[in-house]
Amino acid sequence: MIWATISTWRMSFDGLQKASDLLENRQSAASAVEKLINAVEDNPAYQSVGYGGLPNEDGIVQMDAGFMDGDSLAQGSVAAIENVKHAVSVARQLSQNKTSSFLVGAGATKYAQRNGFEFVNMLTPKAKEAWQSRKEEQIQQELKPYDGHDTVGAITLDQNGSFCAATSTSGLFMKKDGRIGDSPLSGSGFYADSQVGAATATGLGEDIMKGCLSYEIVRKMAEGKDPQTACDEALFSFVANLENRYGSAGAISLIALNKKGEWGVATNVQFAFCVVSEQEKPQVYLAQPKADKTTIFPFTQEWLDNYEREMNMTVD
Amino acid sequence: MIWATISTWRMSFDGLQKASDLLENRQSAASAVEKLINAVEDNPAYQSVGYGGLPNEDGIVQMDAGFMDGDSLAQGSVAAIENVKHAVSVARQLSQNKTSSFLVGAGATKYAQRNGFEFVNMLTPKAKEAWQSRKEEQIQQELKPYDGHDTVGAITLDQNGSFCAATSTSGLFMKKDGRIGDSPLSGSGFYADSQVGAATATGLGEDIMKGCLSYEIVRKMAEGKDPQTACDEALFSFVANLENRYGSAGAISLIALNKKGEWGVATNVQFAFCVVSEQEKPQVYLAQPKADKTTIFPFTQEWLDNYEREMNMTVD
Repeated sequence: MIWATISTWRMSFDGLQKASDLLENRQSAASAVEKLINAVEDNPAYQSVGYGGLPNEDGIVQMDAGFMDGDSLAQGSVAAIENVKHAVSVARQLSQNKTSSFLVGAGATKYAQRNGFEFVNMLTPKAKEAWQSRKEEQIQQELKPYDGHDTVGAITLDQNGSFCAATSTSGLFMKKDGRIGDSPLSGSGFYADSQVGAATATGLGEDIMKGCLSYEIVRKMAEGKDPQTACDEALFSFVANLENRYGSAGAISLIALNKKGEWGVATNVQFAFCVVSEQEKPQVYLAQPKADKTTIFPFTQEWLDNYEREMNMTVD
Repeated sequence: MIWATISTWRMSFDGLQKASDLLENRQSAASAVEKLINAVEDNPAYQSVGYGGLPNEDGIVQMDAGFMDGDSLAQGSVAAIENVKHAVSVARQLSQNKTSSFLVGAGATKYAQRNGFEFVNMLTPKAKEAWQSRKEEQIQQELKPYDGHDTVGAITLDQNGSFCAATSTSGLFMKKDGRIGDSPLSGSGFYADSQVGAATATGLGEDIMKGCLSYEIVRKMAEGKDPQTACDEALFSFVANLENRYGSAGAISLIALNKKGEWGVATNVQFAFCVVSEQEKPQVYLAQPKADKTTIFPFTQEWLDNYEREMNMTVD
């Protein structure tokens, strides 16, 4: 039976291998996507997701996460949640609620505390150091939108034909208290429909939500477009529209997967992502834009070795 | 020149008249939609929006609001904001930010405080009384999704051809701390594109966001469908899909307006809305579903007189 997973950024590779094992063993798309994202949340080396994520202007790590079950269209989301180790697991549990499936701020943190989720001080020494030195530079007025907004997003297709999509992020470094991006927002950060496929986004959330890009990609796939065409069409027409009417378009990267296990990716920056399926071993790819199309090539072993070395150096 | 406004629920009628005056005098769609919604936020008789809105389980009025400029696609949103008289005005100001345009929880409240927005204890004596008696009934476990979720949503088209859409709500009565619905979410609670038109939603937010219904309606209008067809198609196909796959569909009502000033409405419950344009005096309509279509008829003077009487009775 077909099964497959696609996930954003190189940091999701270890989690992708875990998801791969689960899907191969006929586990659900929901479990696989949660475990994939938990692995990224757990790793302090990744400064834009979960433990070790860079804090907001007040030194607090506030996380956003979303989860969607493509069979039932059930969704759960949290935003600006604090001190919770696995934000995506809270989102998954909330997706079982008919009401109160999207919780934000102190109410989200309270829910996680009362429902037995693991708490941890999310500010690692390394993240604290980055925050303090940034404070000293006093450049927080000029927040560069691209700084540390690498959301982990993932799509899983299991052997029953079920899709799930999920996201998790600590958002922009030095963001304003309470700022949220696209990651927890249905249709913007994620969308899944098991009759069609799924999509997730990473990039400048404030711009992604102006176009509801994940929903738009799934809709185009429902019209019969392959994932690559759907992603490229959705991204580049929107970026042109935004540049024309809004005056600028931030970094945006999109991943998609359809019922046949075919995947697609579009980006207007340099973007790494990971793929595995019953036909394809776990693989990291690099994508970049060229004349309103996305060009994609596999990472070499040399590149990966360098990456590992750098990651090992940055972890205390 | 064409100008027009459509807004959700009878409670928006006074605000609609204010918007009408502004648009007639060549004021902007942005100012008109803000003033319309401010009028509803100010009125303590309306228990689901702004001052007098019913509180959450902790007795705190937490508000959600969204604003979108259809010319630039700029958006601003707040969610679970407290003690702020005009949540939609904060959303409008945030729409001018390239980053941090969506703020939630304590961070949203802090932003409003620092930026000079009017604060007020939003819990009116009447709302406090309703909360206390509900607490005593101890039925908060069985929150009925329809209780007090009447979001004010409005669309304005000004004489320059610009569209704005905006929403404001205090959400479900006795909701969980931090619960947010569709109202502040792009594509779900609202969407506006001045090249096409705009749409907003009211109802059970947890279900509306599963379908990104405001975005879907604007997209259908972009394909050339008239607003009524776009609304009916988007709503009834989604409700059937949700009943089939999720097991239920909450109350959902949708309004839309296109570039020609034509409007459309779809609902799966009984729903009142208000319309005005350069060709049509301010008018309240009632809508209800019938065999996957929405039937619409104007309110009679008798009905309006009764409504006024009831409203006057409910204000202390």
